[in-house]
Amino acid sequence: MLEITPVRSLQEASHAHEPHLGTQQRLNAALAAVEARMVEVVNSDVTVLRDASRHIITSGGKRIRPRLVFLSYLALGGDDELATVDVAAAVELVHTASVVHDDINDHGIMRRGRPSVNSIWGRTFALLTGDFLFTKVYELMAPFGDLNVSLAEGTVALVEGETLQAAAVKDGNFSRAVYYDIIARKTAALFRSAADMGAQLAKGTHEQVEALRHFGFNVGLAFQIIDDVLDIVGDEAKLGKTAHIDIEQGRGFSVAHGGEGEALMDSVKSRMLEGDTIEQAKAQAQALVNVAITHLDVLPESDAKDELIALALSTIDREL
Amino acid sequence: MLEITPVRSLQEASHAHEPHLGTQQRLNAALAAVEARMVEVVNSDVTVLRDASRHIITSGGKRIRPRLVFLSYLALGGDDELATVDVAAAVELVHTASVVHDDINDHGIMRRGRPSVNSIWGRTFALLTGDFLFTKVYELMAPFGDLNVSLAEGTVALVEGETLQAAAVKDGNFSRAVYYDIIARKTAALFRSAADMGAQLAKGTHEQVEALRHFGFNVGLAFQIIDDVLDIVGDEAKLGKTAHIDIEQGRGFSVAHGGEGEALMDSVKSRMLEGDTIEQAKAQAQALVNVAITHLDVLPESDAKDELIALALSTIDREL
Repeated sequence: MLEITPVRSLQEASHAHEPHLGTQQRLNAALAAVEARMVEVVNSDVTVLRDASRHIITSGGKRIRPRLVFLSYLALGGDDELATVDVAAAVELVHTASVVHDDINDHGIMRRGRPSVNSIWGRTFALLTGDFLFTKVYELMAPFGDLNVSLAEGTVALVEGETLQAAAVKDGNFSRAVYYDIIARKTAALFRSAADMGAQLAKGTHEQVEALRHFGFNVGLAFQIIDDVLDIVGDEAKLGKTAHIDIEQGRGFSVAHGGEGEALMDSVKSRMLEGDTIEQAKAQAQALVNVAITHLDVLPESDAKDELIALALSTIDREL
Repeated sequence: MLEITPVRSLQEASHAHEPHLGTQQRLNAALAAVEARMVEVVNSDVTVLRDASRHIITSGGKRIRPRLVFLSYLALGGDDELATVDVAAAVELVHTASVVHDDINDHGIMRRGRPSVNSIWGRTFALLTGDFLFTKVYELMAPFGDLNVSLAEGTVALVEGETLQAAAVKDGNFSRAVYYDIIARKTAALFRSAADMGAQLAKGTHEQVEALRHFGFNVGLAFQIIDDVLDIVGDEAKLGKTAHIDIEQGRGFSVAHGGEGEALMDSVKSRMLEGDTIEQAKAQAQALVNVAITHLDVLPESDAKDELIALALSTIDREL
């Protein structure tokens, strides 16, 4: 589900908004348009900004946030998903900017199977590339009025979450409550904004928008928990980023099972690899996905709704 | 002109938009409101973001960008400058975010007479504080529709200018043309946005808005040239930031007088201190201020226009 199926013909792509096309085809065409838009918007005669931005953008990623925008839009009856491409590109660029800055702070060497921006261009240019991506979000979103409130909310939370994480590592204060607060802000809030914006673009009712916000938020929590588990058990080849860097930085799911305020940095790795802890993490992620799907009850049945459910399930069905 | 005169009474401050108050009083009340708004908007339960943001905000600064917003607004007949406070706060926060990130890249220890965010909280939190300030700009500007296009333009240019500067240092390519390109983007573009947004908020004609954009741009160029000269001849006590750091980083006005592509890093300092080079720089800044003021010819006479002229002159009338 998280793989991008190639668009079967150019004609299909250029008519992606036509209602006779299947949801999956429309989604793929819209996602292809997002890729093109991101590459286009970071163009600059300042070549290092252009090249570093395109390096990280074209290295892939699951594009789960743009998928949330499009599927939320389609599930509420939106019929021109290509008109939502800039918003989907913007939310993905927020995530991309945070990834570039994250790799500076964590000294990440690999990202998505390629050298990180940091390791190719150095710290100064990586910092400026992240800033550039943030400013391009701002440029993309300028025409979208009140949607900016939603994306700003998710973006502020993301930076707060990253900061809470760095502070928790520094202070050795990694309780379960702190862990949930961190992942709620650094990941789930932006998932919520993505679903929210798609729903608003489709002019959903208040109840529908709220349902999709809750859906996005819970899927985001589950996604991050599984991501942290994968960081523990995965290897470099599979994940394409510096393995175990998250553990070395003292974060990750199982840390949340330590006592309140306990400094766990040294013992984190072995404890994380206890099977029952990973099973617990998976069970919690499963519960969050169940909650997410329940929130969709108020939505009419549709292919897009089914795709949202599949997306939610795919977050916990990654190779562990 | 660049000193903030204390507001004489609370009553005056709360009635700052009443037209019978003098322009200077209205400006001071609006600037006080900007200070309060910036302190308020960076509130967060993530204490390091709140504290680091307030540290840099409350350390002062000339607030020349908010002044440009207010005076452009007043000069075109705007009568409720307190309604423009959020825009003025946003443009100042763009500048503040760039300053925090700049001090990371330049290893700046002092800023505005205080230790830099970087030197107190360290690199990781300084990076996140800068990101946080950028996201708060976004939050503040969400209600302002098309003005976001203008501020995004200035912000993108700022990041491009900082990057061009870092690239020029790295490549030893500091020609006069490169220098002007750098200062146009990193400083003058945001000055232009500030004046532009003030003019747009006052619903100026196309001709008036264009005039104020050119005014802001030229004042910004002059301001940066004099800033660079001050960086060369000033001492730590006067400037309140790590003296000569800009020179050590290989930037600054006189570098622009080197040959195309010439690597000047080692000989920069002595050459910059040649009197005639500094005199040349001052002469060029003076010429730019003259051009700026000429652009105001299309504006009706008013106290606010006189204040804009005084602001332009003040940028070159700093102690050298």
